[in-house]
Amino acid sequence: MIKPDFMRRALQLAERGLYTTSPNPRVGCVIVNAAGEIIGEGWTQPAGQNHAEIQALNDAAARGHSVAGATVYVTLEPCAHFGRTPPCCDALIRAGVGHVVSAMSDPNPLVAGQGLARIAAAGIGVTENLLADEALALNRGFVQRMTQGRPLLRLKIAASLDGRTALANGESQWITGEAARADGHHWRARSCAILTGIGTVLADDPLLNVRAVETPRQPTKVIVDSQLRMPPGAAILRTPGCLIATTVQDAKQHAPLLAAGAEILVLPAHEGRVDLQALVAALAKRNFNEVHVEAGAILNGALLSAGCADELLVYLAPTLLGPSARAMLDFPALPHLAEASRWQIEDQRLFGTDLRLMLRRA
Amino acid sequence: MIKPDFMRRALQLAERGLYTTSPNPRVGCVIVNAAGEIIGEGWTQPAGQNHAEIQALNDAAARGHSVAGATVYVTLEPCAHFGRTPPCCDALIRAGVGHVVSAMSDPNPLVAGQGLARIAAAGIGVTENLLADEALALNRGFVQRMTQGRPLLRLKIAASLDGRTALANGESQWITGEAARADGHHWRARSCAILTGIGTVLADDPLLNVRAVETPRQPTKVIVDSQLRMPPGAAILRTPGCLIATTVQDAKQHAPLLAAGAEILVLPAHEGRVDLQALVAALAKRNFNEVHVEAGAILNGALLSAGCADELLVYLAPTLLGPSARAMLDFPALPHLAEASRWQIEDQRLFGTDLRLMLRRA
Repeated sequence: MIKPDFMRRALQLAERGLYTTSPNPRVGCVIVNAAGEIIGEGWTQPAGQNHAEIQALNDAAARGHSVAGATVYVTLEPCAHFGRTPPCCDALIRAGVGHVVSAMSDPNPLVAGQGLARIAAAGIGVTENLLADEALALNRGFVQRMTQGRPLLRLKIAASLDGRTALANGESQWITGEAARADGHHWRARSCAILTGIGTVLADDPLLNVRAVETPRQPTKVIVDSQLRMPPGAAILRTPGCLIATTVQDAKQHAPLLAAGAEILVLPAHEGRVDLQALVAALAKRNFNEVHVEAGAILNGALLSAGCADELLVYLAPTLLGPSARAMLDFPALPHLAEASRWQIEDQRLFGTDLRLMLRRA
Repeated sequence: MIKPDFMRRALQLAERGLYTTSPNPRVGCVIVNAAGEIIGEGWTQPAGQNHAEIQALNDAAARGHSVAGATVYVTLEPCAHFGRTPPCCDALIRAGVGHVVSAMSDPNPLVAGQGLARIAAAGIGVTENLLADEALALNRGFVQRMTQGRPLLRLKIAASLDGRTALANGESQWITGEAARADGHHWRARSCAILTGIGTVLADDPLLNVRAVETPRQPTKVIVDSQLRMPPGAAILRTPGCLIATTVQDAKQHAPLLAAGAEILVLPAHEGRVDLQALVAALAKRNFNEVHVEAGAILNGALLSAGCADELLVYLAPTLLGPSARAMLDFPALPHLAEASRWQIEDQRLFGTDLRLMLRRA
């Protein structure tokens, strides 16, 4: 009998790969014997290493269990293609498992149902879409990249209750409290890249790396710098993994930044600035699933206007800064309310005294 | 044995008076016999009629129960003074009850512990402060008026996620949805007065009465109109109970508004406008406990700056209107973040697709 609790356990295991599996999806796997006991568990390892299914098969073997006839719960359809590792569906078939339960089908066009089809063709029972929504939640960025060819962009905004991110004089440290800021680092850690604008770099000289949570992997830092104003001594360049997106082609201007360790990505211009659609496409090509945006009002507004913002992660501090303070997003006046972007509040909870809202496009 | 569940029941009963008891507090009462059975229940009736205790004693009598030796749970200390009704503490003593459990002491300086003291002096057992926080939540406005001499002012604001209440062109209907608007009428209904500014009256010509929920009592409408610009044909004057607060003393200018049924309250000026402290004091003199403010950015900001805002009831719609749209509060630029008003989020929940936040001064 198929039990959702085993899939819930597999989802928990998948989450252990939250900071590490990219560009691969976070996947968990649980193997259950005829007596209803878990005999093997695993989750996807960093890219190039074992997927969840192989980890679970190895775990069962290490614990001395036979998986013959066992039921395998996996949060994503087992892969059917050779990537950096051989196809997991073949490994499950060879192992002689009795049944495969999948939470969702793999959106990768190289898999897309073939994994389960091959398993079924081998005479193994197959069940699909058990806790599909929960499984999707772990891998929205991966799914969007596979199906739409672009990463998921999440705009992180910390503001006052009246939507202000800094006083008119620029003072902004700190509007939100420590708990909210620490939570923000968790969202940085799970992202493939952290995107910001040169305005933020020049104003705040941020590090934009993960500090408040432990992670073996630092996201790539991407800076939109249309006119290449980045100072080679900027703090953000002190740690590896900086990608500067610019419209400037002049190699002379590139040289000091390359010397400082940055990589430079020259992109087409749109109204004198980096074309954001081209940027997003370039980030997808680099296999970025989730891009965490911590930018100022101008880049935030431009991403919104360009239709590139998929999620809003908003921390609201219970304070009021007034109309002279700085707005969270800058974009042209709307002629009608009907043209305002519509979002859906997916989650609201307190972190310390601040409120965190997670929204997705409605 | 004293059981909190009986006080919880009394709190439920008190809530039935939410729209009707003012200027009296909302109070509930439950009488329990020695067998632990409820033999009488009551809640405070409209002003001039029975308090909760008398209602519960009458209920027990009507049901044929003796209250001799019974335990009385009451959400506020029984009154000890002659108001429009005789003291409840005496009625309880006369009835021969065995024990009185009170959730909180009466903040009214005419009572303030005397009710329970007199009951104890009559040889009746007394227990205090059972579920005091829950009891306070029902009567914050009453308590504030009794202890600080001013009503509780609640600013109701409907805004976009970026803190905007209307587009630059004034379009604002509707930023929030039907569920949020209906909830807003509940808050109107429980208030003694609904306060707005002449700017809102001139811009929107609102009725500002309770429509979406049933109530036997309409709050008084208070309009801050420093220069007396109110048109005698305004929709708000069509229903009774309008109080116009102004600095204009000219009887000729008063005449058409008096003829339209309004009452006029002349107040001192502060920088050319109605002195808001004087207004708040005048509202307390009228025995208003809760004042629900539905005003524009200017009056909202002035109330905030004057320290007159006690609660914020904010409905955030999941949309973004941009920096050209109108701000929720208007007040001068703050020199430092440390000078921003600090609030505490007491509650957050969805109404339809909108988020409702309840905040109190931190």
